[in-house]
Amino acid sequence: MAKTRILIVGGGFAGVYAAMGLERLVGRDPDVEIGLVSRENYLVFQPMLPEVISGSIGITDTLAPIRRLCPRTNLYTRAVESIDLKRRRVNAAAGFGSRQCALEYDHLVVAVGNQTSFAGQPGLLEHALPFKYLGDALVLRNHVIHVLEEADIERDPEVRRTLLTFVVAGGGFSGVEAIAELNDFVRRSARAFRNLDPREIRTVLLHAGSVILPELPESLGRFAQKVLVKRGVEIRFGTRLHGATAESAILASGERIPTRTLVSTVPSAPNPLVASLPVRKDRGRIVVDEFLRVPDHPGLWSAGDCASVLDRATGQPHPPTAQHAIREARCLAANLVATLRGRPLRPFAFSALGKLGALGHRSAVAEVFGVRLAGFLAWWLWRTIYLMKLPGLDRKLRVATDWTLDLLLPPDIVQLKTDRASSIRREHFEAGETIFREGDRGDRLYVVVDGEVEVVRKDAALGEVVLCKLGAGESFGEIALVSEGVRTATVRSLTPVNVLTLDRETFHSLFAHFPPLRGFFEDLIQRRLAPPMG
Amino acid sequence: MAKTRILIVGGGFAGVYAAMGLERLVGRDPDVEIGLVSRENYLVFQPMLPEVISGSIGITDTLAPIRRLCPRTNLYTRAVESIDLKRRRVNAAAGFGSRQCALEYDHLVVAVGNQTSFAGQPGLLEHALPFKYLGDALVLRNHVIHVLEEADIERDPEVRRTLLTFVVAGGGFSGVEAIAELNDFVRRSARAFRNLDPREIRTVLLHAGSVILPELPESLGRFAQKVLVKRGVEIRFGTRLHGATAESAILASGERIPTRTLVSTVPSAPNPLVASLPVRKDRGRIVVDEFLRVPDHPGLWSAGDCASVLDRATGQPHPPTAQHAIREARCLAANLVATLRGRPLRPFAFSALGKLGALGHRSAVAEVFGVRLAGFLAWWLWRTIYLMKLPGLDRKLRVATDWTLDLLLPPDIVQLKTDRASSIRREHFEAGETIFREGDRGDRLYVVVDGEVEVVRKDAALGEVVLCKLGAGESFGEIALVSEGVRTATVRSLTPVNVLTLDRETFHSLFAHFPPLRGFFEDLIQRRLAPPMG
Repeated sequence: MAKTRILIVGGGFAGVYAAMGLERLVGRDPDVEIGLVSRENYLVFQPMLPEVISGSIGITDTLAPIRRLCPRTNLYTRAVESIDLKRRRVNAAAGFGSRQCALEYDHLVVAVGNQTSFAGQPGLLEHALPFKYLGDALVLRNHVIHVLEEADIERDPEVRRTLLTFVVAGGGFSGVEAIAELNDFVRRSARAFRNLDPREIRTVLLHAGSVILPELPESLGRFAQKVLVKRGVEIRFGTRLHGATAESAILASGERIPTRTLVSTVPSAPNPLVASLPVRKDRGRIVVDEFLRVPDHPGLWSAGDCASVLDRATGQPHPPTAQHAIREARCLAANLVATLRGRPLRPFAFSALGKLGALGHRSAVAEVFGVRLAGFLAWWLWRTIYLMKLPGLDRKLRVATDWTLDLLLPPDIVQLKTDRASSIRREHFEAGETIFREGDRGDRLYVVVDGEVEVVRKDAALGEVVLCKLGAGESFGEIALVSEGVRTATVRSLTPVNVLTLDRETFHSLFAHFPPLRGFFEDLIQRRLAPPMG
Repeated sequence: MAKTRILIVGGGFAGVYAAMGLERLVGRDPDVEIGLVSRENYLVFQPMLPEVISGSIGITDTLAPIRRLCPRTNLYTRAVESIDLKRRRVNAAAGFGSRQCALEYDHLVVAVGNQTSFAGQPGLLEHALPFKYLGDALVLRNHVIHVLEEADIERDPEVRRTLLTFVVAGGGFSGVEAIAELNDFVRRSARAFRNLDPREIRTVLLHAGSVILPELPESLGRFAQKVLVKRGVEIRFGTRLHGATAESAILASGERIPTRTLVSTVPSAPNPLVASLPVRKDRGRIVVDEFLRVPDHPGLWSAGDCASVLDRATGQPHPPTAQHAIREARCLAANLVATLRGRPLRPFAFSALGKLGALGHRSAVAEVFGVRLAGFLAWWLWRTIYLMKLPGLDRKLRVATDWTLDLLLPPDIVQLKTDRASSIRREHFEAGETIFREGDRGDRLYVVVDGEVEVVRKDAALGEVVLCKLGAGESFGEIALVSEGVRTATVRSLTPVNVLTLDRETFHSLFAHFPPLRGFFEDLIQRRLAPPMG
């Protein structure tokens, strides 16, 4: 008799708790095989991510290795490339080497969650820091330390102001938790920098509504506002973020806040894998029945943020939170096993236990079973509940130790440069910005993706001379790269411009070894260095 | 009266201890300004790096923030680009933006250490993992977990063997400490993987001599060998590493050991900054007098691994170790201040206190004040001495906590993918290797840097047909990238070949927005898809 193969796609709360539920029910049944495909080999305990910013929790301590949570599941640490419902097959990315990996299944659980998306906001993709995944928290932490390092040795007051302004967009749970931790961390860390005056630091929260934390009753939102303002956070109400450049946050009103640190807790977008599935969807989420089955697709199940599960009390879909994902996953596992065993299924029913929002430094707001809490008690409750929920005894012990040490020790200001400055990246400029100045170091090549720029040079007699205008597909900045010198002209954007940029090393390794490119750039440089282009 | 500006270049033991020494002597003197330029904002406590591999010490706990060690020093967290001795100026890299940063000095302390270099060993730069910096330890740790993840789901026995073989080249202190930690970590972690049999794991130490740890008396080397062999390490004596490919370590004898994990504790090479200085050098190190001054260059000083300081007892230069760097730095600081104050200088004199080598899991070897120790006692001594030496009380507390938790908890197998697969990288192939196979997934474009490859295709009637040969400057692999399909031919190396490869995303973002490249590749693809190229 062939084994029944259950495959789970997604390593978040829904996927991992589904595997744990299945293991409990059929893990020792030799006729059932459980597989889980996850991009990472760990489950991120999201509620503690903000504390990774400040380093009060060790980097890996919010992560639980999936293998230890579900030891009887085959874990495939791979990205999923496509799902073929007809052939009942999931294609995973290649590991070492280039062989593809096709996984066949009898039952498939889709639990891929959603994604962040900056679509429609110019410059955010290029210059805003998202805040959803562990990687985001690490990048943000290192970026903040980098900014402090630079501010400490910067003398230009305007540049200092830009470096020492920190903006978070979005006054919901994640935005508030992010600004609270960021504010605490920046202000505590600044003490280790000899040339920084704490009064130079500005932290700003942008919020579209009139009271923050709209998920909670207004009184708690107002309490949270008071706490944040007392700690030095500036809250801008009725304000929406329009876009960003490398040096500013642009508000919908047109106002610009000069900053090098813009955190955006962005609205989530459907996962492209979900979008590609030929099943019924509601606002991008897979519609499932009350048993968490996908209608008309026997053997297909879904739970978590990517599934639209109706709350039978309200008729509305359940919100995409961890609490719901965990309960849905357990119910799904029970119903899947009941289906295998020919037993009756049970419908999903759950009402949220409560909502908790941390405000950093021993304060929080909470609504639990309808009771409102604020301040130290809510914070204590927050820590206790999340420590209990943190999967795995070893993580509990590590986080408890972290918290104890954090009471005793100053914040850790080590800057781990994990993300090497990427060799090829995108940048966005609004109209009228200077992309580089004559005399600057030439460290990147630019290719215009869309928009228009002008190349100008100062002339002793004529003042500023426009040498040329460049549009999509044209490149600039190659002269200083090849001569290893400084910029021979200034380039400014005439319209909003998106560019692709290559760093010096990439430019050289690519063009040294690739004759057609070398030829192209040699011609281009010769043309541009010849009069009248100067 | 102008301030006296002392600038230190380098953030290792020598640089940081020089700053600490100067602060103690003149830190409160308003007429002296101390500056330190360091690429990172932390000092790495090198002796504990091997424990970062196994995660028994938290990632950041071996790092001491430089600002906290020398709070009265201006820290410039920048790379140094050049030193201009004539104009007494150091040029640092740009921070945010592209403005260069020139630092002027009256006294300059050069303490930039040395660098690793894989020169002359084909394929090592591309495929071996170095082991010197913190980044190396993190990369190695994540690579090992990645390999275990892949082995767990791999069914091909040959590929499994390659994945589960771990090779370290070099039987000196750092090689032995690396293989000891690696061996412990792999064997302990494998238990969390359901499809791995510990007997499949092979760990190999390559050593050119006949007894490992040549720095120590032979009896201790033999003891260390026994400990390692008992724990499952295979030691290959009289063996030198010749080179590497992605899937094997190539020995000088021509023998290949199939492996995906080759760690090389490489010989160090002079820092390019030192090479560029017009001062007298001995085997790449800056020659200094007994007061740590650079002769004929008033105001120029050097200490640490980049300085050649003669041992007055033996007439030989002192070895490049942390113990020596720290003592040299203290002596240098005292002599620099004595020079400012017009007081007599004192010559450098120090004989090493002892040598310690950790063997992992509660064993070590040591020679301290001429006394030989081996086993648990040496290990206890190792931990105690290094914990005492670890700079900063907070780090001491953190490491002590880490060690305590490590006794209680299983090893951490979280794989933090810090190094995104770089978009452009180099690869090396020996003659006769398959670069990719017809039918493989097409995920990279290749440009030949040197060497020759052949493109072949299977033909039902004719067997294997050679389509063409390609050499330096030519590219292949573009067809599958553009069509998003599988490889339409097999490519093999005819000679040793170095290639530059671009991943799919880079290829597309570069070529979608850059018409000259698009044109070139469109032509190339058309030519290659047309008969007779198939």
